[in-house]
Amino acid sequence: MIEDKNQQRTQLSDLGEFGLIDHLTKNFKIKQASTVKGIGDDAAVLNFKNKKIVVTTDLLVEGVHFDLTYVPLKHLGYKAVIVNLSDVFAMNATATQITVSIAVSNRFPLEALEALYAGIETAATIYNVDVVGGDTTSSNKGLLISITAIGTLEPNDEVYRNSAKPNDLLVVTGDLGAAYMGLQILEREKEVYKVNPNNQPDLEPYTYLIERQLKPEARQDIIKLLKDLKVKPSSMIDISDGLSSEIIHLCTQSQVGCDLYEEKIPLDPAVISSCEEFNIDSTTVALNGGEDYELLFTISQDDYPKIKANPNFTVIGYIKEKEAGLHLVTRADNRIPITAQGWKNFND
Amino acid sequence: MIEDKNQQRTQLSDLGEFGLIDHLTKNFKIKQASTVKGIGDDAAVLNFKNKKIVVTTDLLVEGVHFDLTYVPLKHLGYKAVIVNLSDVFAMNATATQITVSIAVSNRFPLEALEALYAGIETAATIYNVDVVGGDTTSSNKGLLISITAIGTLEPNDEVYRNSAKPNDLLVVTGDLGAAYMGLQILEREKEVYKVNPNNQPDLEPYTYLIERQLKPEARQDIIKLLKDLKVKPSSMIDISDGLSSEIIHLCTQSQVGCDLYEEKIPLDPAVISSCEEFNIDSTTVALNGGEDYELLFTISQDDYPKIKANPNFTVIGYIKEKEAGLHLVTRADNRIPITAQGWKNFND
Repeated sequence: MIEDKNQQRTQLSDLGEFGLIDHLTKNFKIKQASTVKGIGDDAAVLNFKNKKIVVTTDLLVEGVHFDLTYVPLKHLGYKAVIVNLSDVFAMNATATQITVSIAVSNRFPLEALEALYAGIETAATIYNVDVVGGDTTSSNKGLLISITAIGTLEPNDEVYRNSAKPNDLLVVTGDLGAAYMGLQILEREKEVYKVNPNNQPDLEPYTYLIERQLKPEARQDIIKLLKDLKVKPSSMIDISDGLSSEIIHLCTQSQVGCDLYEEKIPLDPAVISSCEEFNIDSTTVALNGGEDYELLFTISQDDYPKIKANPNFTVIGYIKEKEAGLHLVTRADNRIPITAQGWKNFND
Repeated sequence: MIEDKNQQRTQLSDLGEFGLIDHLTKNFKIKQASTVKGIGDDAAVLNFKNKKIVVTTDLLVEGVHFDLTYVPLKHLGYKAVIVNLSDVFAMNATATQITVSIAVSNRFPLEALEALYAGIETAATIYNVDVVGGDTTSSNKGLLISITAIGTLEPNDEVYRNSAKPNDLLVVTGDLGAAYMGLQILEREKEVYKVNPNNQPDLEPYTYLIERQLKPEARQDIIKLLKDLKVKPSSMIDISDGLSSEIIHLCTQSQVGCDLYEEKIPLDPAVISSCEEFNIDSTTVALNGGEDYELLFTISQDDYPKIKANPNFTVIGYIKEKEAGLHLVTRADNRIPITAQGWKNFND
């Protein structure tokens, strides 16, 4: 959890910008047939033949999106890629390439950037995407990572946020709230460490939660599974800011309402027990926690038999007419309007 | 030059992240037929039919790449787009879309971001590119802009850095060093202002230099002109870090040498006079200044008649075998090895 102060340190200025990019990217291999030219020119050249493409970009800022006190740099590199790939999959697309730009202060030695890029390379390898470009520059303070991801769509495969229809079922993959609870555990341990640096925390009971926070996965498998099941969602979005925030996006853009059933929201037992430990309501965590990178989508009721037996999917509600509004139906059968509590990172 | 302290200030936190993105991008119009879906979903959807595409990305950091003491935010937005489009043109491609991500501290009011986006929109309109996505987040310190640009290539149009051949002519567009001298003028005025805030500087003699620094253009016109002249460069790169640095990239990747003639380097009279005023060597400025965003390319000698009479082009040298090395041939006919002095921004 804590940096080794005696680790090897090579100053970034020893390499210069071009040397640094070359050094960090020299192991990156081109795997995609669509990558004609990768890193090393003014721009990458890509050939998607007749396929439509998707493009998405995300910015991760130290102190806003991550805390290097407990986030290992290799995990951070991995997660930065995942965050972007998740957006590609949320379009029902196949991820193919990424570009990676970083701004980094001189407090980081070369070895830190090597760890960051090792994480990026690991994610690129596992998800079969090529790193085709980027930019590396200095910052006055901290670390910032900007990744752009590109993917391809088969004809008519695109799934937007704005096409949910009344009576569609609202479906979510995996379980929710674990990434947020992982963050609470890590924040708590950070405070304990400040008081007693020699304390050896037992994090074993929280393995799943911490892994969901530090090393999330993007649901590439779901996109494949939906194709195999011959289910094309009527709308889809990934859950980065929290379930309630994403439901609002989806319903607002589709001009529909919805009923979400509290009792249906999928929670891992570790989320339930840690919520009890922290004395937080697990539904609130699932609704507002964010960073789960699960997929939220709607399907026609006709498709329900195709997904019904599958443990990857949970039907959590259904779409209604716009006039009905957006509501959480609680276990006590109360109807509470759904409001956005997503990650408002300008509010500090 | 100086911020108006009484200007209207709307806190970013009043809008929240999604409100902010909506607000800043609401005037952006889709102009490109290839943009199927722009801002508003997990990713943009683009359809390039059978065309190959190019992708490039750049990161601009406050305090490293720009100083808001003298860079108006509207100009900064404009320049941030130009920097990326220049890379697209350096591939001999047509620019079509950009994504824009910004990280910004709470010290910036909404009106500052509106000015930044007004510059981005102006550049997007003039260069006919669509803004199709982005991310807006907070930073702990300062402003950071990450832009990714996408462009299309006609069949066989791509021009790389690695394909210059011995005996090719080395050609540059426009003139060099003005952007660097503009920066020197602005830095000097900043120092004067610190001593005497009531001083009204007369910047009229430096208009060209300051404009080249604050509001550069990318040479889209040259790409069209080369097509009209039926000249396909054998290699090409844009001049962002300085002529010597770009020549080294081009020759290293092409595995060739070159002779560059000092007397041929195109300088604007304003560069020459300001270099005298600052007591700097104008050749050094042209070689190492950077930020000119001109194009450096090589052509076969057979193509020389096609460009010879054109004021946009200056032949500044020729390509030699690798063994000959890279040399500047001075006015006194001395041969000096060309070394990289480009923008080493890790060296502070």
